[in-house]
Amino acid sequence: MARNITPRQENYSQWYLDVIKAAGLADYAPVRGCMVIRPTGYAIWENIQAKFDSAFKKTGHVNAYFPVLIPNSFFQKEAEHVEGFAPELAMVTHAGGEKLEEPYAVRPTSETVIGYMYSKWIQSWRDLPVLINQWCNVMRWEKRPRLFLRTSEFLWQEGHTAHETAEEAREETLKMLGVYRDVIENELAVPVIAGEKTAGERFPGAVDTYTCEAMMSDSKALQAGTSHFLGQNFAKAFDIQYQNREGELAYCWTTSWGVSTRLIGALIMTHSDDDGLIIPPRIAPVKAVILPISKDESIAANKILPIAKELAAKLDDSLGGMYTKIDTDFHARPADRFFTHLQKGVPLRLELGEKDLAAGTVRLVRRDTGEKIDVKSENVIDTVKKLLDDIQANLFTRAKNFREDNTYDAANYDELKEIINNKGGFVRAYFGGSIEDEKRIKEETGGATPRVILPGDNRGKCFITGQDNARLTIFAKAY
Amino acid sequence: MARNITPRQENYSQWYLDVIKAAGLADYAPVRGCMVIRPTGYAIWENIQAKFDSAFKKTGHVNAYFPVLIPNSFFQKEAEHVEGFAPELAMVTHAGGEKLEEPYAVRPTSETVIGYMYSKWIQSWRDLPVLINQWCNVMRWEKRPRLFLRTSEFLWQEGHTAHETAEEAREETLKMLGVYRDVIENELAVPVIAGEKTAGERFPGAVDTYTCEAMMSDSKALQAGTSHFLGQNFAKAFDIQYQNREGELAYCWTTSWGVSTRLIGALIMTHSDDDGLIIPPRIAPVKAVILPISKDESIAANKILPIAKELAAKLDDSLGGMYTKIDTDFHARPADRFFTHLQKGVPLRLELGEKDLAAGTVRLVRRDTGEKIDVKSENVIDTVKKLLDDIQANLFTRAKNFREDNTYDAANYDELKEIINNKGGFVRAYFGGSIEDEKRIKEETGGATPRVILPGDNRGKCFITGQDNARLTIFAKAY
Repeated sequence: MARNITPRQENYSQWYLDVIKAAGLADYAPVRGCMVIRPTGYAIWENIQAKFDSAFKKTGHVNAYFPVLIPNSFFQKEAEHVEGFAPELAMVTHAGGEKLEEPYAVRPTSETVIGYMYSKWIQSWRDLPVLINQWCNVMRWEKRPRLFLRTSEFLWQEGHTAHETAEEAREETLKMLGVYRDVIENELAVPVIAGEKTAGERFPGAVDTYTCEAMMSDSKALQAGTSHFLGQNFAKAFDIQYQNREGELAYCWTTSWGVSTRLIGALIMTHSDDDGLIIPPRIAPVKAVILPISKDESIAANKILPIAKELAAKLDDSLGGMYTKIDTDFHARPADRFFTHLQKGVPLRLELGEKDLAAGTVRLVRRDTGEKIDVKSENVIDTVKKLLDDIQANLFTRAKNFREDNTYDAANYDELKEIINNKGGFVRAYFGGSIEDEKRIKEETGGATPRVILPGDNRGKCFITGQDNARLTIFAKAY
Repeated sequence: MARNITPRQENYSQWYLDVIKAAGLADYAPVRGCMVIRPTGYAIWENIQAKFDSAFKKTGHVNAYFPVLIPNSFFQKEAEHVEGFAPELAMVTHAGGEKLEEPYAVRPTSETVIGYMYSKWIQSWRDLPVLINQWCNVMRWEKRPRLFLRTSEFLWQEGHTAHETAEEAREETLKMLGVYRDVIENELAVPVIAGEKTAGERFPGAVDTYTCEAMMSDSKALQAGTSHFLGQNFAKAFDIQYQNREGELAYCWTTSWGVSTRLIGALIMTHSDDDGLIIPPRIAPVKAVILPISKDESIAANKILPIAKELAAKLDDSLGGMYTKIDTDFHARPADRFFTHLQKGVPLRLELGEKDLAAGTVRLVRRDTGEKIDVKSENVIDTVKKLLDDIQANLFTRAKNFREDNTYDAANYDELKEIINNKGGFVRAYFGGSIEDEKRIKEETGGATPRVILPGDNRGKCFITGQDNARLTIFAKAY
């Protein structure tokens, strides 16, 4: 089998696309900027969805579905919102053979249409809080598409909640940020810094935006999920009023929060290597692949395959799902078969050769380290379970160490520019500047932006304005 | 609480909308013909999805995702397909602030774009069969919308498979028809007749269409799911060729099959009554509701609620999920609380009053029959499980008996017209006519169409053409 993946050092962008292609995760669609998520990629998305959905339901949220089309006039009702999204809208102007009186936008996000419905549903404080989530497709027209990271259409979830008080809405915003951090770190094994965004990086229409910010293996940043405190901006734009406990009409306080198929891009760029994809065991559709191996195809098929099937059944039973796959490409060379599963990122490979059978052992090979471990047959199940936990933990630790190794402190603007240009990575610096300052820094550094304000009360002198009490902020180039 | 549901006898259409509103299942959106699926409705859809998704995966299918936009030119490639769908398309003509060179349609179904991708993915017989399903939203512009039954946007799944031979593709078409019948009957408790459609009722572009046809409680028919043998029509239109076992290029044989949120409409119109929704236990998000009841709110809250919580935990444990809900509206009158859960269709109500507690019993009330059963506390769990099974079985039997009571035989056209106009229901008659005959019958009967050819080899003289060997077919007015 040809080495069909460009090394990361040679061309990171090409490596990323090669990994996706070799693992069969996605493909470009015959529609500008859109992607097709292939079965292997979609199975990863289904697992990611299941983890988040369960966490949302445990925190009291329910799912619903709102229309994919939004009247164009809805966007005009919130000034920042329309400014942020108008350039990216795809517009339906004709339907059912007629020109529409008012064009509809394919939803880029649903604050507006959900706000409209909430204004009809919410009457009294007894109706609050409303805690609704939606899983759906959204569209933001993209001129420079990149699979999973920037596509004109992508899949996501968007939570939209309405509350009686600002405090409750702020609490919800931070609660969901915490849910995001927990799922992304514990299930996807992607370490993130969860904190506030600066003014220039806020969601259009939000009062405050919070983010989970991750570092990819080229040391650039990726925004993995955001949670917004919307104040009363959308409540006022869409007249979401309720009768409060004092019998007076009051505007709700709302939040919104979302993660998307972008997380698959984060997964790839956090864990994978020059051999291809690496999937953390808790998210992997196939956690272990079993390969019956013999030079004699009939021995592989007739003698070893039944043993492999028995083992697969026991493993699935022990793992609590259909997580084991058997490779029956007996006609192919073992090295080619190994390579296929390397590229697909299966966490553990179990080799069942004639020698192994004779010795009463199974050879286990870790995808993350390449380590080979010969295990007695009776210990295989326990060892697989332990190794899957080890791989999950190792992937997280490895990524966290990488981030720490590539995080620097800058005492002033010159140092920041020097680090961004010569080393890359995350740069910590005290920042208290304006949106204009953010723009200037981005231009002058060739693309670095404030990614996240570090949680905790770290204060110091701003490297741009010189003012005291500025907050410690991560700067980086970002996807 | 006001009786807010119009009786079925008075106005069936209004009854249907009232049931939906009272149960909080859906609402019209501020977009022509589109709906919002509210949390209670969406939870039912999630349960329906889970049952089908599991059945698809057990039969070897995988999920994927294709773009929501389809180039307009794709529809032109299959003559019948474009004729069938062109009048219903919603068109995106502008995006990213520019007029598009070619307009895109919001997908009404995805045979075309999936066919295009299959032509790239499929090279050899070794790549076959391809067994892919997609869960997504689709759009078919609707001038006379009706919640769940006909809306401009709806949610569905569409399976698309490609095979080496016609036989395999036909087998797949019938296999999925069987999967539909099993899930619809066993989980939704909706009896269906699974069989072939006549030529006039075929999917645009299909060689053969099969359907699961159900009878609603006004004795009209509803098409609950369809499975299509597409022959090589789409393979030829999109050049889905593969190298066969003889090394020659050959066109694939393809199928497609789908069920949608329309099934929620079928569920409502099969089981519900003048008190509101009735949900079959296997699909119900809440299978049992527990009501602590006392004239003294503090007794309900402090003395009975803890007992209710303990019971709910045991029930959830026994049912294997969070299927029990506790009603804490202690300030409301018991009759109003009962009515709320009647309207929402919860299969079982558990009343925990002071008298019940003193007697060591719980009162169980069945939603389907209204029957009240006092059960000793220690037997509640077992009785609930048994009653849920009983209710599921009873709903199915009741609907099946209703269908049989409203199915008639017509020996000739006059009898058919007389039954359709005076009794409604399903009419069995031998039919071997053309598409033009189907149109004429529809006009002359005020709307009756051939719904499904009965399975089995029932042959006789056609009531229209007089020819022998015509097949026994169900005629009815349909949703």
